[in-house]
Amino acid sequence: MEFSSKLLERAVNEMSQLPGIGKRTALRLVLHMLRQPKEQTVILSEALQAMRNDVKFCKSCYNISDQDLCEICASPNRNETIVCIVEDIKDVMAIENTSSFKGLYHVLGGKISPMDGIGPHDLNIESLVSKVKEGKINELIFALSSTMEGDTTNFYIYKQIQEYQIFTSTIARGISVGDELEYADEITLGRSIVNRIPFESSLKL
Amino acid sequence: MEFSSKLLERAVNEMSQLPGIGKRTALRLVLHMLRQPKEQTVILSEALQAMRNDVKFCKSCYNISDQDLCEICASPNRNETIVCIVEDIKDVMAIENTSSFKGLYHVLGGKISPMDGIGPHDLNIESLVSKVKEGKINELIFALSSTMEGDTTNFYIYKQIQEYQIFTSTIARGISVGDELEYADEITLGRSIVNRIPFESSLKL
Repeated sequence: MEFSSKLLERAVNEMSQLPGIGKRTALRLVLHMLRQPKEQTVILSEALQAMRNDVKFCKSCYNISDQDLCEICASPNRNETIVCIVEDIKDVMAIENTSSFKGLYHVLGGKISPMDGIGPHDLNIESLVSKVKEGKINELIFALSSTMEGDTTNFYIYKQIQEYQIFTSTIARGISVGDELEYADEITLGRSIVNRIPFESSLKL
Repeated sequence: MEFSSKLLERAVNEMSQLPGIGKRTALRLVLHMLRQPKEQTVILSEALQAMRNDVKFCKSCYNISDQDLCEICASPNRNETIVCIVEDIKDVMAIENTSSFKGLYHVLGGKISPMDGIGPHDLNIESLVSKVKEGKINELIFALSSTMEGDTTNFYIYKQIQEYQIFTSTIARGISVGDELEYADEITLGRSIVNRIPFESSLKL
């Protein structure tokens, strides 16, 4: 791609560093900014820099927060004895959106993935084990993605905390609401039959 | 979408102002920035601001440029008597990529589109008419998109410059290279038969 302006080229190159943004999309975004008032670009850059420089991670659960302790961990209305283990903050937001969980979270910051060079020590696992060791937690909920890496991470953590004999659970795997049975993969369908629940309890949800 | 941090929320909201970027994509981009070094965000914001504040539009053709006159207009190797009318700078880049045009451009900055509230006076048409009036141009090439708005704009400009009796042309419409004939729309196919060219001249391209 040939640019008639070095400034334009630099802006497009920097934008295209972002994931999923190619050169063409970056050019479209940058040309849009040129059509908007200058203040708009200033506001965007300042918002990004303020976020990058000043955002904190909750010292207890590693959720993103403006304070040392995030709103969820600081809330007196949450059950501190139930902790839900998630991969990243998008998962916290997704579960919070359902309003079905009133415990705390623990954000790992990723999954164990040897292919990507991510080992257990790159994740927030030690602090989770310490919490369990302190005896504050009654139940740990594994809520990672149902992939090889997710299962590996679940199992690694399970092994670490096994000796403390707390109750561990994992989110239900099954047919998604609205899904056609014939298109479900056989592992999901098989598990959903093996782990069937009383019909009456499905009416309560 | 509930955010655990106001800084994060502001960054996501500003990012999602960009065209084609929804809240989810914005969140993904912003979380990616959080995983990158802080300098990366500084570099991006500075590149965007420098571009927005310092980029110029060529005073002759309205292409984006770092100088008052863009590289194309300033080049002694271009034929100043042939001017190609395009909608925006993406079109200049697209035509320049083909290396098949050695004249100058004139960037309108849009198309006449009453539906979007864009009239002739919102575009760089007057300066084009002045250039024609000065007698510097021998040929005007219309290279707008083949849409209702493009055709309207072409016709409006044609009416404005008709009295100066210069040669006007429009880029060829026809079957794209690599296209299957059976999937071509009938207007394109019809035009490509009416405007057929000698077989020998198609071999030269």
